[in-house]
Amino acid sequence: MPTLKLTYFDMHGGRGEAARLALFIGGIPFEDRRVPFGEWGAMKPQTPYGAIPILEVDGEVIAHSNGINRFVGKLAGLYPTDPLQAALCDEAMGVVEDIAVPIVATFGISDPAELKSTREALVDGPLSFYLDRLAKRLAKRGGQYFADGRLTVADLKVFVWIRHLRSGNLDHVPADLVPRVAPLLVEHCDRVRDHVQVRAYYQ
Amino acid sequence: MPTLKLTYFDMHGGRGEAARLALFIGGIPFEDRRVPFGEWGAMKPQTPYGAIPILEVDGEVIAHSNGINRFVGKLAGLYPTDPLQAALCDEAMGVVEDIAVPIVATFGISDPAELKSTREALVDGPLSFYLDRLAKRLAKRGGQYFADGRLTVADLKVFVWIRHLRSGNLDHVPADLVPRVAPLLVEHCDRVRDHVQVRAYYQ
Repeated sequence: MPTLKLTYFDMHGGRGEAARLALFIGGIPFEDRRVPFGEWGAMKPQTPYGAIPILEVDGEVIAHSNGINRFVGKLAGLYPTDPLQAALCDEAMGVVEDIAVPIVATFGISDPAELKSTREALVDGPLSFYLDRLAKRLAKRGGQYFADGRLTVADLKVFVWIRHLRSGNLDHVPADLVPRVAPLLVEHCDRVRDHVQVRAYYQ
Repeated sequence: MPTLKLTYFDMHGGRGEAARLALFIGGIPFEDRRVPFGEWGAMKPQTPYGAIPILEVDGEVIAHSNGINRFVGKLAGLYPTDPLQAALCDEAMGVVEDIAVPIVATFGISDPAELKSTREALVDGPLSFYLDRLAKRLAKRGGQYFADGRLTVADLKVFVWIRHLRSGNLDHVPADLVPRVAPLLVEHCDRVRDHVQVRAYYQ
């Protein structure tokens, strides 16, 4: 087993959380480096693309969160070996990134009126669209898991995202959006939350 | 071997081109469905996420271009089996998507002055940054290929993108940007272009 060091912000969410969960579930030892927000400015230029998470594997740095998810998913037995199932797993993870990008971009908006209108446009447009389509894809796979008929890193990634959307912590994104637009993703989120090792992680 | 049908626009470039190249190089038979731009509006709502490429594998649809690249890369022997090398391959493909998203977004800008200022801001900001960082990552891998010390789908994806940037066909993105900011990516682009099977594809 390689020596692993995962570097991400000190929070229960975001792009690094699925990898932490996967490593915990797989029982893979790793150094869980949590960067205080105040230290990020100094660290940012030292990372390959000015972003975290990064994963060090025996000292070699991997950047890009979904690539990290696939890598740790393979180690943890949470990534399909069948190429078609792997592609469906990739698809769900990719879609979460597609919609995360414009949402993350709104974190930089300081004008309250602009933030409100931008977030509301996302809610009415791409956010609702992607939620609906993602739920339809899940339904097509049987409604339980996104790939391989079992828990994979795709489920962990979608779970972290949907939990955040449901939290009401994102201003102008109503907490009832997911239940209203994609109730199947609420069921899925609760299914992953209640996974015995996911529960253990948060305890 | 599964029955494959790849659906994408009828052009030598964009998000579907790396998969076409990989399938050709691997000698994998596939139906190369090319959608005329005029037919896209009617087809768009029928796709899983309102986007192409999509790949049908024995009738099952896979969406998301990099997932498709991984799938066909495995079939064609152009995706690393080693997990660390696979993660480095994923990283380069992911970075091209990261910068493709804001560039593709500019295709919808109709006001010439706004298009100019938006494209110029991309050139001076994230585009130059990502080109520089991608070249540094390539240098770290030895300067020839992004992963596994050989041609992979990452090289095909970067090649298609850099070729487009160098073409001068993208208004307000100067054709000398890549040579100026990331000369190693010019060498890499020419290396992939001169690959015997890449040459054969375009002949």
